[in-house]
Amino acid sequence: MPAKLVHNSYGKSAVRLTKVTRLADRHELAELTVNIRLEGNFARSYTQGDNSAVVATDSMKNTVYVLAKQHPVDSPESFALHLAGHFVQTYGQVRRAQVEIEQSSWRRIDVAGEPHPTAFVSEGSEVRRATASADRNGKGSHVRGGLGKLLVLKTTDSAFTGFVRDRYTTLPDATDRILATEVSAVWTFGSPGADYNAAFASIRTAMLETFARHKSDAVQQTLYAMAEAALAAEPSITGIRLRMPNKHRVPFNFKPFGLEFENDVYVTTDEPSGEISAVVERASS
Amino acid sequence: MPAKLVHNSYGKSAVRLTKVTRLADRHELAELTVNIRLEGNFARSYTQGDNSAVVATDSMKNTVYVLAKQHPVDSPESFALHLAGHFVQTYGQVRRAQVEIEQSSWRRIDVAGEPHPTAFVSEGSEVRRATASADRNGKGSHVRGGLGKLLVLKTTDSAFTGFVRDRYTTLPDATDRILATEVSAVWTFGSPGADYNAAFASIRTAMLETFARHKSDAVQQTLYAMAEAALAAEPSITGIRLRMPNKHRVPFNFKPFGLEFENDVYVTTDEPSGEISAVVERASS
Amino acid sequence: MPAKLVHNSYGKSAVRLTKVTRLADRHELAELTVNIRLEGNFARSYTQGDNSAVVATDSMKNTVYVLAKQHPVDSPESFALHLAGHFVQTYGQVRRAQVEIEQSSWRRIDVAGEPHPTAFVSEGSEVRRATASADRNGKGSHVRGGLGKLLVLKTTDSAFTGFVRDRYTTLPDATDRILATEVSAVWTFGSPGADYNAAFASIRTAMLETFARHKSDAVQQTLYAMAEAALAAEPSITGIRLRMPNKHRVPFNFKPFGLEFENDVYVTTDEPSGEISAVVERASS
Amino acid sequence: MPAKLVHNSYGKSAVRLTKVTRLADRHELAELTVNIRLEGNFARSYTQGDNSAVVATDSMKNTVYVLAKQHPVDSPESFALHLAGHFVQTYGQVRRAQVEIEQSSWRRIDVAGEPHPTAFVSEGSEVRRATASADRNGKGSHVRGGLGKLLVLKTTDSAFTGFVRDRYTTLPDATDRILATEVSAVWTFGSPGADYNAAFASIRTAMLETFARHKSDAVQQTLYAMAEAALAAEPSITGIRLRMPNKHRVPFNFKPFGLEFENDVYVTTDEPSGEISAVVERASS
Repeated sequence: MPAKLVHNSYGKSAVRLTKVTRLADRHELAELTVNIRLEGNFARSYTQGDNSAVVATDSMKNTVYVLAKQHPVDSPESFALHLAGHFVQTYGQVRRAQVEIEQSSWRRIDVAGEPHPTAFVSEGSEVRRATASADRNGKGSHVRGGLGKLLVLKTTDSAFTGFVRDRYTTLPDATDRILATEVSAVWTFGSPGADYNAAFASIRTAMLETFARHKSDAVQQTLYAMAEAALAAEPSITGIRLRMPNKHRVPFNFKPFGLEFENDVYVTTDEPSGEISAVVERASS
Repeated sequence: MPAKLVHNSYGKSAVRLTKVTRLADRHELAELTVNIRLEGNFARSYTQGDNSAVVATDSMKNTVYVLAKQHPVDSPESFALHLAGHFVQTYGQVRRAQVEIEQSSWRRIDVAGEPHPTAFVSEGSEVRRATASADRNGKGSHVRGGLGKLLVLKTTDSAFTGFVRDRYTTLPDATDRILATEVSAVWTFGSPGADYNAAFASIRTAMLETFARHKSDAVQQTLYAMAEAALAAEPSITGIRLRMPNKHRVPFNFKPFGLEFENDVYVTTDEPSGEISAVVERASS
Repeated sequence: MPAKLVHNSYGKSAVRLTKVTRLADRHELAELTVNIRLEGNFARSYTQGDNSAVVATDSMKNTVYVLAKQHPVDSPESFALHLAGHFVQTYGQVRRAQVEIEQSSWRRIDVAGEPHPTAFVSEGSEVRRATASADRNGKGSHVRGGLGKLLVLKTTDSAFTGFVRDRYTTLPDATDRILATEVSAVWTFGSPGADYNAAFASIRTAMLETFARHKSDAVQQTLYAMAEAALAAEPSITGIRLRMPNKHRVPFNFKPFGLEFENDVYVTTDEPSGEISAVVERASS
Repeated sequence: MPAKLVHNSYGKSAVRLTKVTRLADRHELAELTVNIRLEGNFARSYTQGDNSAVVATDSMKNTVYVLAKQHPVDSPESFALHLAGHFVQTYGQVRRAQVEIEQSSWRRIDVAGEPHPTAFVSEGSEVRRATASADRNGKGSHVRGGLGKLLVLKTTDSAFTGFVRDRYTTLPDATDRILATEVSAVWTFGSPGADYNAAFASIRTAMLETFARHKSDAVQQTLYAMAEAALAAEPSITGIRLRMPNKHRVPFNFKPFGLEFENDVYVTTDEPSGEISAVVERASS
């Protein structure tokens, strides 16, 4: 049958590593999950079963550990760039390498008010993210930072009114509702070599503070304000993509029990959820 | 700060419904999870908090249930098309509507050898998928079918040899290994109006049979053979995207115990996993 | 500070293995997840850091693979019994060993209408379970079979009426509702040596058929009927524990849209769920 | 067939609520998931489909929301006790009510160095737990606090040596390894009326500090030291149950690459995991 292979890629997912850097006065801990994806001259593996150009995904896994030993792993962005560059430089058949890294959040345990040098407690589900790609011809290479699973909730200063009201509408206007969301963000650096850790900290703080202070007329508006704040806080990024699902807290209907809902007790739900997203870029002034 | 909104979309995720169609001799059951995403003139909600053009995601949810009542819901593709068209036709501010549906798998319980007319047992994690999009200007509209979480495993007729061997390689050649994967597939129909249910059945069967019979020299090659088989089996589709992570079964090292691995006992792993994917299209002959 | 260790146990969880038995005309596949728990003279490890009696959990893992090679692994019950016995017989410090096994469900892929000898497709989330314990003194040893994550749904012949109606009640009587549940069952064999596979098949069939046919006045009643059917179908078991959460399908409120709910479109929910459970034993006649 | 119902219980799981208490200067936030289980005179529902004694699980759900409005919900323990007592006192057919509560962890967002009065960020997966049971006859009632999903990791001061070495052993002695675990704890209060929030804080701090400082010769020993510290820190509890799975970080084998493992790069694993647990009680002096 006449068929053609119009796109292909392959790689390794979920390579997990823990790196401990043993300094004189403390240990540094980095816990990463790495995904690698290669594109290039691999078509004959699909069409002929000819693996002569194929870098085994098991070898990719080995490479992650070997390079993690030799690299400081001081930011996920720098390690992602290093890995992506390695694959393009080492293997002529690789046209493009993409590396995604997710870093778990750990902080030091406080012992008698002091952060312990070698013991850590998880900050939970929030993750820091980085992606880098390297292209053989140099075009399309990029480095991005990001975060995910950042759950935030505000108990006031959130309204949703004035939306389309038609035969499918039952939602009443809300002038004071709970706004809860799980923020995912990806930001693009204008060029490699930024201070990725400082950028992460300043963007995260700017978004959290804006979320807290914003008088919200829509999740959309809060999202946009957070994106603006991120761009203002961090000159090294050129744009940011935000995704903020609306994790609804639904007023419990107390009427059947002779009581009133007084913005006090809500039903916590996961689904369905609103899905709000946007890409905001720095405007040329 | 000068910022510009370069892309935005919003919608509702995870609207879950169960539809029962009560026929004279049996009940039909459809269980769907629906995601809706709209693009259009919604920028003022982001930049001004002006919601006058915003269709509330709660109204989208209501719409799903109302239209599910009025539509036969006889295939996820036809219902996705119907929903996507509804949003574009009903709201002038919507430029593009995208609907994704995931359908759970239920089959009738056998009672005394006969399928029961009103009782069902889940076929498990496997899902059928459909996506449809509608564009106001007609361009870019599409309808796709698919499946996901289809776990398959073969205990022989899978090899992986002749790949790149360098300083990062420790994997030995394997002439007879287990091949286990979780198939995800998305196929594109050439035009609306195909027999979506027949297409689903023929593609699924073609892929399963090919997986079983293929003498595999690489997961890539098996994937390509399955894609070819799907295209051959179903003339109404123009292309198929397949993703087949390699869910490794690792030979247990029996040497320390004075025993030999004899292709008998493997360590089952979830991570890391290989990641093999491709898009295959029907070639013009 | 005066403290005392009043109970302790330790072991290994989630040892996963795939065993292939290569027969002349076909391969048999068993995929198991094994949990081991030991009790015995291990207190000094807790109180003194003295590990001289401790069997490393890593060694338990090795033991599972080695014994899986040497045992036919023809039923999870027999392999669980074998493993539990091994630990008590091999290590004098072990007073009691408990082994839990969860077996994934695979069936052969049909190729041209015939089950393929070496290729399999997952039956999904449903699992078969077995537990066995061995006691040094012989008391308290047991072997149990079971199943879990068996999702079933019936679209009629389920009512729930006549329950307590007071100031906390808003649920209307339902004379014809959907009943959906995820069955978990554990059954106890009167003595080792039963035909575990035949028992599994007969109990599973009895429960499914009863679920399908039962005119249900309460989930509780259906659960009891299924337990009775299991005991009637399988003389080798002495009792059965069933857990059947009520996975509610909630009628969608069509009133605001000028329509009526006609037992047709339901909201599928996961939470909250009812929780119904019971233990039913064979009565001495 | 002669069968007897030897045990039964039923209830509602996963009732999720968000309560906001609006004080003059700040809002307090409590997010709970509540499980309820009743035992009593419910046998006729199982054996006859007679629901006249059955409190609908939907009514239990309503009750949780109504009582959450009327109760301060200032600790999960006090609310669990209140709920359990309600069911026994309100319904004569209830012999025993058990309530389990899981509370999510939220802290205030820092804005310009100050905790914001109405905006919160999740502390992640860690949860606080409480269970209470009420018995009609007063016997067996209890109230317990606890926590779960507390992930901690120490990069040194953890050894595991001197364990049983036999034909199933391949693990080498480790004098300096990573110790990572996910702590689950349940503590029992001697009597109702303790300061549950203060107890939670003091026990959590004692366990974290002990984990950080302990020179560990076994996970068992660290667990016991943490239990001792909890009992010492909080006089109102009589005992504590701890579960600490060993979430292994496995040294990566650098030998094939001409490198040495230097306690630097580990493979992060979830399974299999060690399973260490114990119950420690306050000794009568």
